[in-house]
Amino acid sequence: MCQLMRRPLCRSLPKCICQFFCKYSETKCSDPGLIQSDITWTPSMDYHLRKSSPEAYKKLRKIAKTFSRSTAVGSFIELTAQEHKANQIIMKAKKAEYSTGILDPEKFAPGYHIFQALPKINESALFKILAKMPKGGALTTHDTSMCSTEYLIQLTYRENLWVCTRKEGCKVVAFRFSKEKPTIKAYRECNWEPMEALRERRGDENVRKYLNRRFSMYPLGSFSSNNEAWRHFMHIFDLVDGLVQYAPIWGEYFYNAMKEFLADNVQYMEVRTLLPQLYCLDGTLLPVSETVQIYKDQINKFVKDHPNFIGAKLIYAPLRNVDRAGVAKYVKTCSELNEQFPDVLVGFDLVGQEDVGLPLVDFVEELVKMPTRVKFYFHAGQTNWSGSEVDANLVDAVLLGTKRIGHGYAVTKHPLIMALAKYLDICIEVCPISNQVLQLGQDIRSHPASLLYARNVPIIISSGSPSYWHAAPLSHDMYMAFLGIAPINADLKFLKRVAKNSIAYSTLSDEEKSIAFLKWKEMWNKWIDDIVKNEGSEHKESVK
Amino acid sequence: MCQLMRRPLCRSLPKCICQFFCKYSETKCSDPGLIQSDITWTPSMDYHLRKSSPEAYKKLRKIAKTFSRSTAVGSFIELTAQEHKANQIIMKAKKAEYSTGILDPEKFAPGYHIFQALPKINESALFKILAKMPKGGALTTHDTSMCSTEYLIQLTYRENLWVCTRKEGCKVVAFRFSKEKPTIKAYRECNWEPMEALRERRGDENVRKYLNRRFSMYPLGSFSSNNEAWRHFMHIFDLVDGLVQYAPIWGEYFYNAMKEFLADNVQYMEVRTLLPQLYCLDGTLLPVSETVQIYKDQINKFVKDHPNFIGAKLIYAPLRNVDRAGVAKYVKTCSELNEQFPDVLVGFDLVGQEDVGLPLVDFVEELVKMPTRVKFYFHAGQTNWSGSEVDANLVDAVLLGTKRIGHGYAVTKHPLIMALAKYLDICIEVCPISNQVLQLGQDIRSHPASLLYARNVPIIISSGSPSYWHAAPLSHDMYMAFLGIAPINADLKFLKRVAKNSIAYSTLSDEEKSIAFLKWKEMWNKWIDDIVKNEGSEHKESVK
Repeated sequence: MCQLMRRPLCRSLPKCICQFFCKYSETKCSDPGLIQSDITWTPSMDYHLRKSSPEAYKKLRKIAKTFSRSTAVGSFIELTAQEHKANQIIMKAKKAEYSTGILDPEKFAPGYHIFQALPKINESALFKILAKMPKGGALTTHDTSMCSTEYLIQLTYRENLWVCTRKEGCKVVAFRFSKEKPTIKAYRECNWEPMEALRERRGDENVRKYLNRRFSMYPLGSFSSNNEAWRHFMHIFDLVDGLVQYAPIWGEYFYNAMKEFLADNVQYMEVRTLLPQLYCLDGTLLPVSETVQIYKDQINKFVKDHPNFIGAKLIYAPLRNVDRAGVAKYVKTCSELNEQFPDVLVGFDLVGQEDVGLPLVDFVEELVKMPTRVKFYFHAGQTNWSGSEVDANLVDAVLLGTKRIGHGYAVTKHPLIMALAKYLDICIEVCPISNQVLQLGQDIRSHPASLLYARNVPIIISSGSPSYWHAAPLSHDMYMAFLGIAPINADLKFLKRVAKNSIAYSTLSDEEKSIAFLKWKEMWNKWIDDIVKNEGSEHKESVK
Repeated sequence: MCQLMRRPLCRSLPKCICQFFCKYSETKCSDPGLIQSDITWTPSMDYHLRKSSPEAYKKLRKIAKTFSRSTAVGSFIELTAQEHKANQIIMKAKKAEYSTGILDPEKFAPGYHIFQALPKINESALFKILAKMPKGGALTTHDTSMCSTEYLIQLTYRENLWVCTRKEGCKVVAFRFSKEKPTIKAYRECNWEPMEALRERRGDENVRKYLNRRFSMYPLGSFSSNNEAWRHFMHIFDLVDGLVQYAPIWGEYFYNAMKEFLADNVQYMEVRTLLPQLYCLDGTLLPVSETVQIYKDQINKFVKDHPNFIGAKLIYAPLRNVDRAGVAKYVKTCSELNEQFPDVLVGFDLVGQEDVGLPLVDFVEELVKMPTRVKFYFHAGQTNWSGSEVDANLVDAVLLGTKRIGHGYAVTKHPLIMALAKYLDICIEVCPISNQVLQLGQDIRSHPASLLYARNVPIIISSGSPSYWHAAPLSHDMYMAFLGIAPINADLKFLKRVAKNSIAYSTLSDEEKSIAFLKWKEMWNKWIDDIVKNEGSEHKESVK
């Protein structure tokens, strides 16, 4: 019999209700989300709770609310005295925004599309705190959507850059570095000219403005369907490719990405990489291993230049829209590269719109040939086609032993898979803004991850392709998750849990994790101190 | 040890995975959504599923998918041979629409707002089948949003009707039947004139068109916030009030409502009623008991005229935006009326926008004074303010012993409450289109009820205020639920379950339920036969 049953409270309540709460509380420590249900209960049993005394009612209500809080993401986190102080300041900022929102929902950013909400978020006191938060790692990033649009525009001033346009020179569809006029075909018919010519013809400021839009999803806050959103999204990748797949740029791009992420207080990155063959000025292509080598060199260089950066790892993630033979080739490439770069290229995934490619199940026989030292980090459930073949990718990802699930937007519709994720310690990579922009859901408050939160399924917060919506590397997603997905009472414990998860569920080895954790902790403690100190000085300011 | 563990399959699989599935399957019959988790498992355990043989993989995948299906709404329903035939025809229509949607999401109605999708739905082969389906009862309806817009417009031709306008006669804000020019104040300052005068001034066709829009949310497919949507919504009620609260019209309106619902193959209704005092031509107000009496008389009359109609019951559901004294008054009124009409007025609820009223917890002390013969059917969780006081209405509704939860949109964010709902056999009234129009979520495919489906939480499908979005009494919501919320493989078992639930979870007594069930079953069997027969004749047609 559980503690609760012995309390006088239970004697004044219907027995079955008490038993239920007891069962719930008993399983709490081992696995709070999963409830045993062998209590015999018959519908005829008189369980009118309103017969309970006002005191019993209050107590029962408190128990119910406490249980809910104690079984959510972050509930097992302990806060230090200093963290408690910082927490009060953070929660004051969060509650202020929440209360304003309840009175006037138009002022609540997570209810709106990022394109509409971004300027408002950037002014938010809570956002300013979260921007400085050491977030651990960004585990869902993609090769060419990491660096800011401003950086991409800067690249277009480099020498030897050609641009290919359509619609009488109005629409830019490709870039290419070359001594001579490129002979390579872009993904669409177009006319090559030197970048300088375009700039001269249309004016520098106009071209900057134009590219600022073309390197992102702006201003299209909605598309006729999510397929349409995906088409637009993939075209940005096409456009950026020629610019960054130039061998001398590739490394520089990634170095700058790490710089931008670290500036957003992200100390570690995992890149889902297509591993393209990089090209040289004369058009020759380098072997894929060079792409990995450049990544490796840049990581080492960046860590040397920035000792508080933990590092980065690669997950080979080619496009899923291929046949079985294509996947067989992927597996071969991945195995070989992993053998050559065992500490850098450590995982495998398939990317691109899930809805239009073949489902994972079609590739199982090829995928199981992957050496087990290469772990799986499958994108799955990034769909709203419930019960479809695509939706079943969640089942196959888990059965293939995936370590994390990219997006997993649909996972809550599959209780068994969600329970397995928790049980097998599979982490869900939640990317709120990406899901919004790619039209899975509009209002962040209805994002299914609120259930993962409530059931304490392991999650990390990530951004996907933040550059394409002009968002910070991780801060805007963290803000949306903290304010829009987690409930009002979710506090610093939640933030600490997701930051720690981003190291715990990374591809890092146990030894690497220890070092990573120490680097993160140092920055974290400083952040906590700064919050408390700033509040103190602001308080002094206002007293003066 | 469970059956599964003894099978050779389990010997070729990691033990912990097998144990997990076993635990899941053992609890299946008693309570499929709740899983015990006392299995010891350590993260270091080697559980690489990809080491399993292709055969083991296939079997495990099949088990996983079978479990998911066998634990969803409708899984315990048995189909007759004839139902199996009908099911094939229904599923052919469903799958055709689903497949078209996957190829071109713009053709998939549940992805779009009802105002955009309605004409397309009305042409759908699946919708035509569902329109004829005997749906059992509509358990979430409101006094004055049941009858079609066309019927409301017809009422405006009745004699002695006055209309109150603002903005130089352009905006109609109130109606009133009266011999003389009304002296009553409408909710806003306005000028009274005879309805004929307005019609003459603006032209009959123009007024019809105008009212067609004003008696609904059209054409506003989106509002700046859900508060804004609610304001617009409540103004329709205000507008309709003067038209239908005229004593001679009230009964006629409800008789017509039952007629329209029965035409949509709904055989039973439960009305959340505000129980307004009805007015006479000279302006005198009748006592509230008259309102109930008129309901009662009309129910008896309609059942006599239409023997296949089961009947209707009332749930007294006054506006929630009051103080404690207001609720105390409600409880008194409800107790008295229930004593006077024990077979008609059987339940209590509070309605109106949850976000802006006081939370249930503030009224607990008054609410527990309700005699237990009056059951609670609280609206709760019709919000996206996670963790707010409003959100906690779900907790209080359950602790107050509610029999059903109106909307319960947020319930999936509260695993304990969801588990309690299932355990205590509390039914969730799912109203997909209402949630869409009142801006809780846009894409029906992301409606949280897909989780209630997967976890086999008791649900019924209802419509709320179908008139205000020009929807059929129940068919459009059934279509959205079947195609958009339930996954592709959810079939006739799902439809049969929700139809049966609408009787099982009604306020009807056990004796009344037996009769209700027989009346429904007769229509159901005919529907099934018709589907099979029509397919046969269509087949013959095409062979000719």
